[in-house]
Amino acid sequence: MVKVGGGEGIQYGPLCEDLAALRAEGHALVLVHGGSAETNRVATLLGSPPRFVTSPSGYVSRYTDRAALEAFLMVYCGKINKQLVERLQALGVNALGLSGLDGRLLVGRRKETVRSVEGGKVKVLRGDHTGTLSAVNTELLELLLRGGYLPVLTPPALSEQGVAINVDGDRIAAAVAAALRAEHLLLLTGAPGLLAAFPDPTSLIPHLDAAQVLSGLNAAEGRMKKKVLGAAEAVAGGVKRVVLASANVPNPIRSALAGQGTVID
Amino acid sequence: MVKVGGGEGIQYGPLCEDLAALRAEGHALVLVHGGSAETNRVATLLGSPPRFVTSPSGYVSRYTDRAALEAFLMVYCGKINKQLVERLQALGVNALGLSGLDGRLLVGRRKETVRSVEGGKVKVLRGDHTGTLSAVNTELLELLLRGGYLPVLTPPALSEQGVAINVDGDRIAAAVAAALRAEHLLLLTGAPGLLAAFPDPTSLIPHLDAAQVLSGLNAAEGRMKKKVLGAAEAVAGGVKRVVLASANVPNPIRSALAGQGTVID
Repeated sequence: MVKVGGGEGIQYGPLCEDLAALRAEGHALVLVHGGSAETNRVATLLGSPPRFVTSPSGYVSRYTDRAALEAFLMVYCGKINKQLVERLQALGVNALGLSGLDGRLLVGRRKETVRSVEGGKVKVLRGDHTGTLSAVNTELLELLLRGGYLPVLTPPALSEQGVAINVDGDRIAAAVAAALRAEHLLLLTGAPGLLAAFPDPTSLIPHLDAAQVLSGLNAAEGRMKKKVLGAAEAVAGGVKRVVLASANVPNPIRSALAGQGTVID
Repeated sequence: MVKVGGGEGIQYGPLCEDLAALRAEGHALVLVHGGSAETNRVATLLGSPPRFVTSPSGYVSRYTDRAALEAFLMVYCGKINKQLVERLQALGVNALGLSGLDGRLLVGRRKETVRSVEGGKVKVLRGDHTGTLSAVNTELLELLLRGGYLPVLTPPALSEQGVAINVDGDRIAAAVAAALRAEHLLLLTGAPGLLAAFPDPTSLIPHLDAAQVLSGLNAAEGRMKKKVLGAAEAVAGGVKRVVLASANVPNPIRSALAGQGTVID
């Protein structure tokens, strides 16, 4: 199970080449991707600049009204998902892209209101298309894996009422890895792993014991918090090993499997 | 097999409700959609206004360079495909959206150069992401239909070299209808059918004999030409009946099945 982030400057070329080579060796793989930076750019050009909120417990998340959701669908499900599929197909990999809406692949609970800390005060925002995952349609994923397809997955998920909800990609990767009983979950970004003193790359934490994972939350900045939380969920769900590593190195998957990054097991 | 166009003012609500009701009655359905008008709007906002070319034989098509392809992917595969899936899911239909890239669903031949008549002269344009369909992955569609999913399909297709190519949605619908041995192919747009004197709605041609279909090309204006060509291909491929009809009426599918529109058989 490989998750590649959607931050600024992520390179998809080495990742896709590595995926193709590993698949040719017979490994079963599933890819999940993000698209945050490009969504911000496109949403701004389309007249709906992104809005982020920080919850009272310190998690940063995107506030997703209908206009933001449309930009989200365009970038995550359109531009990024389909260009990853195209790139993998050109490398001979029979990739197949799906969002969580498709075939009720990822079902969750919508949280229509979100608490946001602004200027030291807590505000309540409504109309948010956000939520948490409650079920993965493993039957569909297994149908596709058995058919020889490489699933390329993207948020959003679908609420139980049939509304698109933005669910964090790392949490999706963790839930899918656990549901498929994946051996490894690799969370790849532009950073080399979890840094004790962000953004200093020499402060890389090479290993976290699964039992210590939640204490890693203290070290994690902003978006890294969700990766550490995703790692904790995956390990609790039965995934043997989670690696937070860089997507922007040669053979990023092999490199992460070899332990380059922050290994959590 | 239902194809809904992507012209200005197409309403998806009645279509999706009719799809849900027909499926509840046990009908097997596949939906193909367009997205032309919205792609033009988004591409313009993103700084790449659309460019259309008219071939020497009179067909109008979109000139699709990489920037245009990205806008195309965003709107067709992202915004429209996923909002149709979301709408159908909210109606209890287990819809699953796929482009032609996914799982090599629609494979075609790229035509990298296009001849364009401009000011009476024929020019040759290069770098076009356009082509014609050569194969439909019916195995994948049948896998999904057997699994209880309603496929919601969109261009682009994939070239044999693994590059995204824009293939006309009506020709896709015709090819998929023939490949799945569909009984009916409904091509729904904002117009009531094929008009002898476009845009006069009272000039509706109620029936064309399959053998006469190609003569219908003379009556067809602009984008309608491709619908008539798609109808001809579908009938030649074994589809019993093609109906060109309006999407913007109550129960548009039942209405088209009842013969409201231009029936070709």
